[in-house]
Amino acid sequence: MNTMDLELRLMEQIAAIPDFDREAAERARRHSDQLTKPPGSLGKLEDMAASLAGMSGELWPDVSRRAVIIMAGDHGVCEEGVSAFPSAVTPQMVMNFLNGGAAVNVLARQAGAEVVCVDVGVAAELSHPELLNRKVVYGTANMARGAAMTREEALQAIWTGIQIVEEKVGQGYSLFATGEMGIGNTTASAAIAAVLGELPPESTVGRGTGIGDDALARKIDVVRRAIAVNVPRQDDPLDVLAKVGGAEIAGLAGVIIGAARNRCPVVIDGYISSAAALVASRLAPRCLPFMLASHLSHERAHGALLDVVGLSPLIHMEMRLGEGTGAVLCFHLIDAALKLMQEMATFDSAGVSQG
Amino acid sequence: MNTMDLELRLMEQIAAIPDFDREAAERARRHSDQLTKPPGSLGKLEDMAASLAGMSGELWPDVSRRAVIIMAGDHGVCEEGVSAFPSAVTPQMVMNFLNGGAAVNVLARQAGAEVVCVDVGVAAELSHPELLNRKVVYGTANMARGAAMTREEALQAIWTGIQIVEEKVGQGYSLFATGEMGIGNTTASAAIAAVLGELPPESTVGRGTGIGDDALARKIDVVRRAIAVNVPRQDDPLDVLAKVGGAEIAGLAGVIIGAARNRCPVVIDGYISSAAALVASRLAPRCLPFMLASHLSHERAHGALLDVVGLSPLIHMEMRLGEGTGAVLCFHLIDAALKLMQEMATFDSAGVSQG
Repeated sequence: MNTMDLELRLMEQIAAIPDFDREAAERARRHSDQLTKPPGSLGKLEDMAASLAGMSGELWPDVSRRAVIIMAGDHGVCEEGVSAFPSAVTPQMVMNFLNGGAAVNVLARQAGAEVVCVDVGVAAELSHPELLNRKVVYGTANMARGAAMTREEALQAIWTGIQIVEEKVGQGYSLFATGEMGIGNTTASAAIAAVLGELPPESTVGRGTGIGDDALARKIDVVRRAIAVNVPRQDDPLDVLAKVGGAEIAGLAGVIIGAARNRCPVVIDGYISSAAALVASRLAPRCLPFMLASHLSHERAHGALLDVVGLSPLIHMEMRLGEGTGAVLCFHLIDAALKLMQEMATFDSAGVSQG
Repeated sequence: MNTMDLELRLMEQIAAIPDFDREAAERARRHSDQLTKPPGSLGKLEDMAASLAGMSGELWPDVSRRAVIIMAGDHGVCEEGVSAFPSAVTPQMVMNFLNGGAAVNVLARQAGAEVVCVDVGVAAELSHPELLNRKVVYGTANMARGAAMTREEALQAIWTGIQIVEEKVGQGYSLFATGEMGIGNTTASAAIAAVLGELPPESTVGRGTGIGDDALARKIDVVRRAIAVNVPRQDDPLDVLAKVGGAEIAGLAGVIIGAARNRCPVVIDGYISSAAALVASRLAPRCLPFMLASHLSHERAHGALLDVVGLSPLIHMEMRLGEGTGAVLCFHLIDAALKLMQEMATFDSAGVSQG
């Protein structure tokens, strides 16, 4: 497909995103108010139960089959010295995911979630029976010197994300988390946040995997140069994604659109996933009610980025690992919200006086 | 036992609290730094793993047997109109806990935790095969007119908490959460926070189960009067606990001391539990490393109260239910921390380059 065909198909997907079912959410609220607790006292657990009803159209959706989709891609901008780790770590960590040894694997096992690992832009040949090989680019180009990707590549990566969710939904999955791996991708995310969030680069750039002060200053300068060289158009999220984004970020934007398209909740992980959420919400504002923020990352601009998207995090663990770790950790809270709604006694059934 | 004997026995328990094992915590950190992630990138999950090692003296303590201890008690101060619910709800909710229908029961089932329900001060006769009947008072007296309890009653309630933990430790339990039920107990907690935290009552008093503006103003006035009438001594936590506290708060202070005494982590729930944590940490500062904060409650003074104790919450769910709900919800994070340490690959074993 050419760029225009891809763009048309994306617009069709976006147009097909269903409305949030306010009536179902309201029914969940009414049920919740009959349970033996002061109204609203379960806080975000009650909000989440209502949201899940509104997303799915069902009072208590079945979210037992769940997956974290890890999109992996490399970043040409690493040649500017913006990361504490070499690019070789991207394929090494992908193999670690596939062999079950990474943090996200441990947390996914705890949460009963499948880890789906996608090579959408790794700058190395990778082979593993469980790897989804959907390579769109062999690493992005260095955005400090020109566009990271073409518009067509960005569209293909989005499309990859949508398709993978479609496949999983076909297999009965109904709950998703976003995960990613890509040395250099906090730099791309900071550039996206700066342009789409209209924030100064010095506020959106953080220490990523743990860079020192010199590298931090360099990283801020790199983001400034990437924006100056590429002049991404703030009113065109695809242009921003292509010029200063990354294949894995585009893939995750697709995962989010795909989940919304299928009435499935999608839990947003940390800084990079939130940059993808920002792109998705600008491309398709109706995605927003289908997203749940998970944790507040230690990456300093994450709170501001979530504010721009319009999401509020649940857990404050000072994590800064990515991979989907924070998102998968929050599946437990979704389960808790649904169990509370289904298993708690009502004021009537328990003989408890109302206030 | 008389007051002096009780006080001596408490001092013995406090003196027997072991030191936090810094060497074990350091070993856990060293192990964590070998795992395939940037050092420190799992944030509070890594801190928690190190803390659990330091508490138990073991690299990966077994915390599979866990219980939430719910202390229940009534408050004479309710006659001042400080709560949205009548005192009758305390015994009704205790029966709801015992019948498995409350929010804490649902979350405890999810967490594989036992719910231990203790009548330490309910103003009604309660009977159930699984209720621990350890009634010290038949509701407290109205603290707006005089002392809520005698010093002896406060000591007995603390002793009850210590004993229950001892019993559970004897049965193989090694992880505890604090829970409580007691209409009126945010008022007592606000008074404790004001005196021991040296905070103005207008900042420590919140809406509890959901009172309106008039009742809030009345509640602030009641706390001011309780402090003026009783003149609790800020340097004597037992005096504060007796005069403006409650039996369930005292019981929880005992649970915390008992857990620390036995090298067991104790997860602190919301506002009332944090008031108990403040009392415990003033009685026995060496308790502090054995406490883990769980959630930041919606009760407005909770953040300030946790700051005074020296704890930092993990999840921000805007919950305000008590019962131990937020604490039990965080057992999942403790499990996650320990699983990560035990199951993640190392840089060497996975062939991943270090930064």
